[in-house]
Amino acid sequence: MAKVNVNLPQGTRDFSPEVLRKRQYIINTIRSVFEVYGFEPLETPAMENLNTLMGKYGEEGDKLIFKILNNGLERVEKHEKARAAFDKVLDGKNTPDLTERALRYDLTIPFARFVAMNHAQLTFPFKRYQIQPVWRADKPQRGRYREFYQCDADMVGSKSLLNEVELTNIYASVFDKLNVRIQLKINSRKILAALAEVSGGADKMVDITVAIDKLDKIGLEKVQEELQQRGLNDSQIETITRYLQITGSNAEKIAAMKALLGDNETAKTGFEEIEYVLNQPEGIATECLDVDFTLARGLNYYTGIIFEVKALDARMGSIGGGGRYDDLTGLFGVPNIPGVGISFGLDRIYDVLEELNQFPANVSSGTQVLFFNLGDAESKKAFELMQQLRNAGIASELYHENSKFDKQFKYAEKKAIPYAVILGSKELENGEVILKNLQARTEERYSFDKLAEALK
Amino acid sequence: MAKVNVNLPQGTRDFSPEVLRKRQYIINTIRSVFEVYGFEPLETPAMENLNTLMGKYGEEGDKLIFKILNNGLERVEKHEKARAAFDKVLDGKNTPDLTERALRYDLTIPFARFVAMNHAQLTFPFKRYQIQPVWRADKPQRGRYREFYQCDADMVGSKSLLNEVELTNIYASVFDKLNVRIQLKINSRKILAALAEVSGGADKMVDITVAIDKLDKIGLEKVQEELQQRGLNDSQIETITRYLQITGSNAEKIAAMKALLGDNETAKTGFEEIEYVLNQPEGIATECLDVDFTLARGLNYYTGIIFEVKALDARMGSIGGGGRYDDLTGLFGVPNIPGVGISFGLDRIYDVLEELNQFPANVSSGTQVLFFNLGDAESKKAFELMQQLRNAGIASELYHENSKFDKQFKYAEKKAIPYAVILGSKELENGEVILKNLQARTEERYSFDKLAEALK
Repeated sequence: MAKVNVNLPQGTRDFSPEVLRKRQYIINTIRSVFEVYGFEPLETPAMENLNTLMGKYGEEGDKLIFKILNNGLERVEKHEKARAAFDKVLDGKNTPDLTERALRYDLTIPFARFVAMNHAQLTFPFKRYQIQPVWRADKPQRGRYREFYQCDADMVGSKSLLNEVELTNIYASVFDKLNVRIQLKINSRKILAALAEVSGGADKMVDITVAIDKLDKIGLEKVQEELQQRGLNDSQIETITRYLQITGSNAEKIAAMKALLGDNETAKTGFEEIEYVLNQPEGIATECLDVDFTLARGLNYYTGIIFEVKALDARMGSIGGGGRYDDLTGLFGVPNIPGVGISFGLDRIYDVLEELNQFPANVSSGTQVLFFNLGDAESKKAFELMQQLRNAGIASELYHENSKFDKQFKYAEKKAIPYAVILGSKELENGEVILKNLQARTEERYSFDKLAEALK
Repeated sequence: MAKVNVNLPQGTRDFSPEVLRKRQYIINTIRSVFEVYGFEPLETPAMENLNTLMGKYGEEGDKLIFKILNNGLERVEKHEKARAAFDKVLDGKNTPDLTERALRYDLTIPFARFVAMNHAQLTFPFKRYQIQPVWRADKPQRGRYREFYQCDADMVGSKSLLNEVELTNIYASVFDKLNVRIQLKINSRKILAALAEVSGGADKMVDITVAIDKLDKIGLEKVQEELQQRGLNDSQIETITRYLQITGSNAEKIAAMKALLGDNETAKTGFEEIEYVLNQPEGIATECLDVDFTLARGLNYYTGIIFEVKALDARMGSIGGGGRYDDLTGLFGVPNIPGVGISFGLDRIYDVLEELNQFPANVSSGTQVLFFNLGDAESKKAFELMQQLRNAGIASELYHENSKFDKQFKYAEKKAIPYAVILGSKELENGEVILKNLQARTEERYSFDKLAEALK
């Protein structure tokens, strides 16, 4: 066997036809729902200017951005400057003589950049969806890649909670079409802010959120320990504990939380938001809505309703999430454009569909019919018939050469092609073909003009 | 107006919804034809290891590859090594301590890398298509970008000329569906090799090819000058000139060329190849096939039939091309896998369709129906009706807030939404809606349960 002297960068993947077709099934499902909800497609370049990205994802994020080496550094004058710039890398400084561009780290910042650059021409509210890869120099591990797709839908330019209702319905509709039962958790960051205020730690909002965010993973006791370490006192931790222990139906949880947070004004607005989303017309989304006051979402730019999706029947973390933000484009000089968005976790959804065996049976099927190649005159006729099938939209192939019957058969088998058409010298004379159903192991004869019809 | 402090890297583009929908129309057309011809989708990562790409595109190509800076260079030990590596950049050396990865430059080399890595598992002949962006650090200019899509279909593992016939039909079918009349030029590199042999310059094959490749752009006289500069003598140039001056129908050109190249064995094989492709069953592809012995194609890895597509009714260079190669995966340690492939020039096809006004009228349409928001009770009912339309696949929106009628109307207008549904307090009482056709400026009333039907 030949010695292959090549491989892939760590954390990246080729997608073979079978896997890619399954991924496209998920993407097409998400895309069709985005479209029917009036979201419009957008694509941004893989590269952004480095200063568009730096400082937007925290100190850790900055380190995980893939930076692109400037070109032309072999030219002496550029090289000198780049060498000087190079030493600044040690300090984590921005070094435009060495690298000016980077690969996008998510789809949100490029979207904000797009809106900022084009806000004068856009019609608001602007609703876009974007399905593209992003790149992060994370340490690769199971389920974590350096190149992966994000599927985002965002709406900017409206404070109306109707948008949140729309997004819950998008989640419900996508997962309904994918045959995955979900729980759609919602909360409002305003309830978390109220908790911070009521517990007397308004300045500890971030500490409280970060600790609560870990509840699922580490449990109540560890959260309490972490709150203590973060400088909250016993009485504060007591209030937060009561907050975290509220259970019941959506109505029961809201009632209990109202009792706990009392007349706090921030909380009132938070409850209004949640109740608006809950009180939407009965339908597909309301069935899966679950008010979860322990839902925090790590990202600090969220300001209102936040979402997270869990698959009910699979062991898997969140397969989607999002929320409302107030001022994303302010970063780029265009303030006061509020928005709300959601994201679908493509790789995890893929794993869930595999685990639940919910990919449609025909999702990975390519060629439907293989015409056997049994000689020059025979294959010329086969080619003609094949073109008729293709014109009717039936994916077909003619075996590339007049090989042994067995070899052609094996090709069909390996590629899981369901039908074979046999057109030998006798059939050519009789103006007919043998159509073999390779799965059922049956066969029938058809005259040339009846083949396309038989296969439809 | 806000001061926007951000922009895009030179040579890259955002694709707005309108442009993107047109691009997707082209891509989907190409993809559907690839699929019906039994080609399977493949995606490879944006990044490849640098040594996979370097040396594959010539010296100029190497310089145009976007290299990715290694991460973690702010750590002292990595930084020291990278600094040492940095000085080697001056010599154009491979410097793995500084950069180990790069963005793909085309789809052919990643495909060859994929086949080499997976040849033991693949079923041959393996037919894949790949539609993904590539990146080149070319100087940006009109029509030349640093990020652009390639749409490739390749078949590897078969020497059969049937594959060439298939590819001509793919070209014909795609451009037929796009309503673009084309000329599909074909030649064989073997004819060019024979010319080199016959003119007594077998060792000058590359020089001859490079010069002939420029015929369209610079004309016969300049080609002759270039041949002289490249060291060919008068008698050789005389033969080449006679070669280039052959005109007529396909049959006439072949006859004249046979007279010129006589009994040359390489030429004979070349004519066989061309005649096989020409003598395919009458049909869509044969109508546009044009034998063009002056067709050379720049790339040196072609060995047999070569293709190039020109739009008949638009002023534009080639909008597609390809050919047969013998040993692409040999580069990666897996020899003897012959193949043939074609490529579609997405950006140029886009420009041709714009010039010929051949994009379908509805290609850029998003939302079909805007429900006006005329109050809480009214919009709640509107939401219900809208969900029915969406379930029927009709892209719909409910205006996000109860704004003035004019403002909502303007939104529909700006987004070119063809229908509006008015559901005010009176309509809510009567159980009906007003459906406005915004283009025809007509309107009709429908009861709630008849709306979806009316719009289908």
